[in-house]
Amino acid sequence: MSRYWSAITHKLTPYVPGEQPKLDNLVKLNTNESPYPPSPRVTEAFHENIPNQLQLYPDPNSTALRTAIAEYHNVDISNVFVGNGSDEVLAHAFHALLKHESPILFPDITYSFYPVYCGLYDIAHTLVPLTEDFQIRVDDYMRPNGGIIFPNPNAPTGCPVALADIERLLIANPDSVVVIDEAYVDYGADSAVNLITKYPQLLVVHTFSKSRGLAGLRVGYAVGNSELIDGLTRVKDSFNSYPLGKLAQIGSAAAIQDIEYFESTCEQVIATREQMITDLIILGFNVLPSAANFVFASHPQHDGATLTAKLRERSIIVRHFRNPERIAPFMRITVGTDEQCAILINALTEILTQTTE
Amino acid sequence: MSRYWSAITHKLTPYVPGEQPKLDNLVKLNTNESPYPPSPRVTEAFHENIPNQLQLYPDPNSTALRTAIAEYHNVDISNVFVGNGSDEVLAHAFHALLKHESPILFPDITYSFYPVYCGLYDIAHTLVPLTEDFQIRVDDYMRPNGGIIFPNPNAPTGCPVALADIERLLIANPDSVVVIDEAYVDYGADSAVNLITKYPQLLVVHTFSKSRGLAGLRVGYAVGNSELIDGLTRVKDSFNSYPLGKLAQIGSAAAIQDIEYFESTCEQVIATREQMITDLIILGFNVLPSAANFVFASHPQHDGATLTAKLRERSIIVRHFRNPERIAPFMRITVGTDEQCAILINALTEILTQTTE
Repeated sequence: MSRYWSAITHKLTPYVPGEQPKLDNLVKLNTNESPYPPSPRVTEAFHENIPNQLQLYPDPNSTALRTAIAEYHNVDISNVFVGNGSDEVLAHAFHALLKHESPILFPDITYSFYPVYCGLYDIAHTLVPLTEDFQIRVDDYMRPNGGIIFPNPNAPTGCPVALADIERLLIANPDSVVVIDEAYVDYGADSAVNLITKYPQLLVVHTFSKSRGLAGLRVGYAVGNSELIDGLTRVKDSFNSYPLGKLAQIGSAAAIQDIEYFESTCEQVIATREQMITDLIILGFNVLPSAANFVFASHPQHDGATLTAKLRERSIIVRHFRNPERIAPFMRITVGTDEQCAILINALTEILTQTTE
Repeated sequence: MSRYWSAITHKLTPYVPGEQPKLDNLVKLNTNESPYPPSPRVTEAFHENIPNQLQLYPDPNSTALRTAIAEYHNVDISNVFVGNGSDEVLAHAFHALLKHESPILFPDITYSFYPVYCGLYDIAHTLVPLTEDFQIRVDDYMRPNGGIIFPNPNAPTGCPVALADIERLLIANPDSVVVIDEAYVDYGADSAVNLITKYPQLLVVHTFSKSRGLAGLRVGYAVGNSELIDGLTRVKDSFNSYPLGKLAQIGSAAAIQDIEYFESTCEQVIATREQMITDLIILGFNVLPSAANFVFASHPQHDGATLTAKLRERSIIVRHFRNPERIAPFMRITVGTDEQCAILINALTEILTQTTE
């Protein structure tokens, strides 16, 4: 605490990201990155462009990148907003579109950055509990609100929301913005992007950090009606004219154009996930149905914190959330390569055998 | 305007950056970039690291980069904050350190992003007029305030403030944060960085976009007492955990370590600037004394807007500010290479000759 800080700075409870340990030989299954590198086209694009005038500012409007994203989703460039990772896009969305008099709604168990943004921008919010089986029930959101946001699939549960349910919510809720955070959508949920032409209050947020294998580059985007994009752009242009460097623009544009590589790596992650879920169930875990590149699993005889600690002793890192208490029994495990998942399953087999002996 | 926008979004007047035109063969002297590429070590660092796991998140704390910056300035890593360009660093400084009950103070003629940040974060501010000869007089800032910010050298004037004056201000103003924005300091002004150990309220902001030749990469930083750095970090971690991608961290660390290249390119820019000032004076221009990589010049017989337009017809872009009216006669001209500056001077000679004939 410091007398030099603003009042809001004193009150903040910052987000704590999963650790990025510098140790070698870790099996790192804690922050939901892709186990695969980005498309080889990204590296090619860099090698062609790196000597190219890094002393000049990048295009402040990221026109080429937004065009590539617009083409991929079959929308107009005026429907696309880009930012320095989807976290920045979400931050601007909270500031530009979700700050109103009524509290906004989001799940009690979800991406833990949402309440942090509310703290940063002084936005009132109401937590909507997941159902008993950890699902988002859209009917629970059909009440007065200043905006609605949830991920599809949800994090850290991995559970998807049906597109028909999202459309029901949009029909019932025309007067405030509905943000669907599709960070993990490519691993098995249905994207709401095609609904943006019908529902001007819908904003869909994507990231290059998961299915595009570019967490190290920091690029995210939002797709929505141009009215929403204009609002985001007003805030962006009042914050940082050039949020994306030249390499971020070039690399992510190359990535989104390589559809074949994207699809094959997503398919591989999905196949590995299904094998991992089967293996975990054989070990006695309860695994929530996942449409993401991670699974959320608990064991009736073993505590989530203890299992996480014992995996760590074996250089395997998964993520454990102490709060809310309802999810304390769980581990969130990123789907790695087949090899990484086999190491995980072997370690868990060993841990469970030792502790039951 | 849209009913989906927050109240603050409606009220914003976003910053308008200098254009980044896509035309070839331009002499681009409008956004104060370095005319020289970054240190060759930057490219080397990229080529060594590009294949290196871009699918993983970068270090959220930018430890290696902050260490390199701390070493360069001979301070501790706890005194260094990094961000996605100095615009992001400034934005967080306004939010974390400059938002208090009393209005903050900055010059009436200065970096035009400052009032935009005030709009974004709802910060009251009072403009302090420059003196008649366009100088910052620190005594004018010795009055109750919620914080003080100005660039040294100032922009768009290029005029420096003496370090002794800055120290006088710090002594007179211990209770609120003083931000010195040293984006252009390496071209001839004295840095206040060494004062941070004596004055806990001092924050000094730097960028890699000018003297480091890395505008295309987006990296900026602040140096100050760890109490100020902690405040900035709280806001950063409530906004975006990973503001700097891997390439931004690697490239800027490589750049700041190449002191020889840095010094020689700064010296070259200064030499070119002095020649350019001489040439402009010969043409009848009034040129403010510049310690930056740009000059601010007006001509008694020619209007700034007209000259800017006539240069543009010749594919030479400089920057003109319509407001405030007091600077409307001026052009802000970036110091380019010797060759670019010769083209500029020839064009101006031609324009002045034609219009006086």
